[in-house]
Amino acid sequence: MADTGEHVRVDFRTEPAKYRHWKLSFDGPVATLAMDVREDGGLTPGYELKLNSYDLGVDIELYDAIQRLRFEHPEVGAVVVTSGKERVFCAGANIRMLSQSAHGFKVNFCKFTNETRNALEEATAESRQTWLTAVNGPCAGGGYELALATDWIVMADDANTAVSLPEVPLLAVLPGTGGLTRLVDKRHVRRDRADFFCTTEEGVKGRRAVEWGLVDEVVPRSKLDAHVRQRARELAARTDRPAAARGIRLTPLERTVEGDRVTYGTVACTLDRARALAEITVVGPAAPPPADAEGIHAQGAAFWPLALARELDDLILHLRTNEAEIGVWVFRTVGAAALVEAHDKALAAHRDDWLVREIRLYLRRTLKRLDVSSRSLFALVEPGSCFAGTLLELCLAADRAYMLDGTREGSNRPAPVLRLTELNFGAYPTVNGLSRLASRFLAEPARVDKLRARAGEDLDARAAAEAGLVTFTPDDIDWEDEVRLALEARAAFSPDALTGMEASLRFGGPETLESKIFARLSAWQNWIFQRPNAVGPKGALSVYGTGQRGEFDRRRV
Amino acid sequence: MADTGEHVRVDFRTEPAKYRHWKLSFDGPVATLAMDVREDGGLTPGYELKLNSYDLGVDIELYDAIQRLRFEHPEVGAVVVTSGKERVFCAGANIRMLSQSAHGFKVNFCKFTNETRNALEEATAESRQTWLTAVNGPCAGGGYELALATDWIVMADDANTAVSLPEVPLLAVLPGTGGLTRLVDKRHVRRDRADFFCTTEEGVKGRRAVEWGLVDEVVPRSKLDAHVRQRARELAARTDRPAAARGIRLTPLERTVEGDRVTYGTVACTLDRARALAEITVVGPAAPPPADAEGIHAQGAAFWPLALARELDDLILHLRTNEAEIGVWVFRTVGAAALVEAHDKALAAHRDDWLVREIRLYLRRTLKRLDVSSRSLFALVEPGSCFAGTLLELCLAADRAYMLDGTREGSNRPAPVLRLTELNFGAYPTVNGLSRLASRFLAEPARVDKLRARAGEDLDARAAAEAGLVTFTPDDIDWEDEVRLALEARAAFSPDALTGMEASLRFGGPETLESKIFARLSAWQNWIFQRPNAVGPKGALSVYGTGQRGEFDRRRV
Repeated sequence: MADTGEHVRVDFRTEPAKYRHWKLSFDGPVATLAMDVREDGGLTPGYELKLNSYDLGVDIELYDAIQRLRFEHPEVGAVVVTSGKERVFCAGANIRMLSQSAHGFKVNFCKFTNETRNALEEATAESRQTWLTAVNGPCAGGGYELALATDWIVMADDANTAVSLPEVPLLAVLPGTGGLTRLVDKRHVRRDRADFFCTTEEGVKGRRAVEWGLVDEVVPRSKLDAHVRQRARELAARTDRPAAARGIRLTPLERTVEGDRVTYGTVACTLDRARALAEITVVGPAAPPPADAEGIHAQGAAFWPLALARELDDLILHLRTNEAEIGVWVFRTVGAAALVEAHDKALAAHRDDWLVREIRLYLRRTLKRLDVSSRSLFALVEPGSCFAGTLLELCLAADRAYMLDGTREGSNRPAPVLRLTELNFGAYPTVNGLSRLASRFLAEPARVDKLRARAGEDLDARAAAEAGLVTFTPDDIDWEDEVRLALEARAAFSPDALTGMEASLRFGGPETLESKIFARLSAWQNWIFQRPNAVGPKGALSVYGTGQRGEFDRRRV
Repeated sequence: MADTGEHVRVDFRTEPAKYRHWKLSFDGPVATLAMDVREDGGLTPGYELKLNSYDLGVDIELYDAIQRLRFEHPEVGAVVVTSGKERVFCAGANIRMLSQSAHGFKVNFCKFTNETRNALEEATAESRQTWLTAVNGPCAGGGYELALATDWIVMADDANTAVSLPEVPLLAVLPGTGGLTRLVDKRHVRRDRADFFCTTEEGVKGRRAVEWGLVDEVVPRSKLDAHVRQRARELAARTDRPAAARGIRLTPLERTVEGDRVTYGTVACTLDRARALAEITVVGPAAPPPADAEGIHAQGAAFWPLALARELDDLILHLRTNEAEIGVWVFRTVGAAALVEAHDKALAAHRDDWLVREIRLYLRRTLKRLDVSSRSLFALVEPGSCFAGTLLELCLAADRAYMLDGTREGSNRPAPVLRLTELNFGAYPTVNGLSRLASRFLAEPARVDKLRARAGEDLDARAAAEAGLVTFTPDDIDWEDEVRLALEARAAFSPDALTGMEASLRFGGPETLESKIFARLSAWQNWIFQRPNAVGPKGALSVYGTGQRGEFDRRRV
């Protein structure tokens, strides 16, 4: 697909009954997710998913499986990833798919696969559902990167089975799904060994793989299954998930697409193609939350915070993947701040409940997904809005927030206010590990503590500006022009420059594995993804499979 | 210059008498460096350096001035950067120069300018020579980035003077010299304000600039000079540099270029163009170091560690800039480990001496420059080598180190050894703030302490491998083939993929302002520097100055 080409419209909604590439099975506290990719199951024509290689469609199912294991299976304490094929674990991302994809699609594909692996890592760390890998055949590139995201890697000790990251020698690109970062920053593989490993097409197997820290154990092929089962039971035994609880069902997400309008229950989006912007409205809860955790379980997927997370998540993925020309996302909220705050209080009061924990984590992931989206984010705080607590995070995630100072002429709606809740102070860290408030006030950390004392207060425009929560506070006379001009200016800038600028300004402060993956590794991969040595007519990605070797411009940059 | 074009051969050696663009003056403990760029003084034809805009030639002089202020002027405790022009401070990097430069040249230019600004920041922090800026006219792009690298920014409060980063709106590229990172991570400018600032061509002036943290003070234009002089004196008074000491002279660097061989006193390099590699040999000291600090001062630029720093620095810059197709740098050493160790001991014993401090810092900067060079680094440890202490850092900086296990058949030279000295344990942190040893053993920090106890020991190949200091230790039978094959394989890979891979593997562990600049900001800038929206025929950089506006592909990536 040339860089001018269009790609298929992608739907991220699926469910286990529809999986084509993964087999999910359960054995008490241990679930097994076996990759068994259908060769003819590619998302678009033009490539075959041989050797358990994957494309976005395969990864969408993995993403769905991770979600369902968390929400629908409280009894599961460990998840084994393995291959359902006889002779291969996973060959990584499909190379023909990559070579025929447009630049933007490749970048977006990698972002999603990275988010999915981060979610898997988070499931281990935060949901106490420990993932481990049984490498039962050659495990290359994205296959090994999937294993790297799990907490424990057991590999068959046979002549056939090795782990490898052959992207550099074979394809002239980087392992694009966190592999390089996880090697040195998660597994702490010595950098010179990592260098050798990443330049060795055939990879490393057996004892050397253990000695170098590339895998945790090797066991004879014949004993792999039993050994992994045993390990998985041990890991599952450490969980704090309630074995006897019942999961909630992630019911099919209802979404209506009518022309340029996408509507869910709590989220709606209208595309303004002429102005290249998406007007996104989040609707606050219509009623108070249930009185107790039991009530939350009973509401299940209908519980407002969970519905919000799922719908916003789906909308972000949809806009990112299917609406590349919509460069600015404008967030508004509608509803009662008190009801949002009441839901936040429920999420705070029942934080030890396994389901509430999952809902908070899902909101956290969704907000992180927003942070790393390569779109300009604006928040508009107007009368009738409910930017409180969890919804205030949308305002804090925005590159800029405009808040109307006062009321609208001729309207009797009160002036808008912001309201902080406990959840603004740690429930939703961004990829740098800090809350959005702490990231915002790197200059004055004490300001965060002061704001904490003001949780629950209604902050009008002046108070919000003084508190540093919004960027500009025009009054009714200036509002329309000021907002319009800002949005027009934004739409006129180079999308690429904005992407680089936003990625640099959004994540001040400390760095984490995640921030390194999104901010450093991805940037390098994006660079390489458009270099002639990779994607030019004679680049390694382009000629892969033709029997020719890539021809390279030898100049180092 | 098209991407296939060649650029002029650049020489980084200069001295104040040859400056064309800067005026250096002294007033007791305060030096003033006034930028006064000659319009017709560009490094290559095709652009005029109007409005104090700069190119690599201008920055080479800045780099030289920073070095000389440190070494030749111990009496200087503060340095004021200002403009020597009436109506402008600095317009930033010259845009026509950028638009006509090849991709690799642009990237390399930004790397050097970043290193120079980091050195200026280090001079403030470590040499106790505090830099401050007097913004006496419009200060845009790279001009403001230069100011951001200084410790204190005073701006004239007049209608004409503002700071700005207009790259995104004007040129569709990023501020490429650390500006975005320093805004949020050094000055802690709130991210939404930074967003507004970086998308506002005209910038911010007056009280808002102070309120937002973009500058430290504004004063009326008429009082600027006196005010800055006063501030500079205050800052200079805080230094620990000895006011009465005499500096040493950085004598002209002697370099011989004969065909493909470059020779200095302690460093020599032979290019093997067929194999695309540079064989670099560092020659250890010929004699013991002086007995005391006075003796070191007397040797001045001839003191071996300083000569090494200067020569290696120049060689790295030369190879980076003028030899882009030489993708692998192979380091060897020749000499006596005991003499290197003795020099390290002198550098350790006299570390509180201002000159010794400078020499250590210069070695540190040079080794950092090596780390961020986009070339594959190999170290070969052979009989007759002296990889001890400071020179062992070359081995630790390498992507891979090969050490001969034993002796060569038919030779009576003893088997090679490595030797650790105190300087391996903190004197030379890499851009992540850790020593190369600590970066190497992220998995086992305790190993560093154990190694400390072994400083001074001769470590043969087996001991070095066990200690984790080298990658492979072939014996005489395998050496030649193993090294040759590794180098051949390296030369065959895509240079771009190697650049991204090495940048990802070299810097595990914590992040700093510097590592963020090189690893994140640079990667994004490199990406943008080849996007059609910036550099295509209708890209913003290409059409700048023609009266046309850039035409952009509106798809977000």
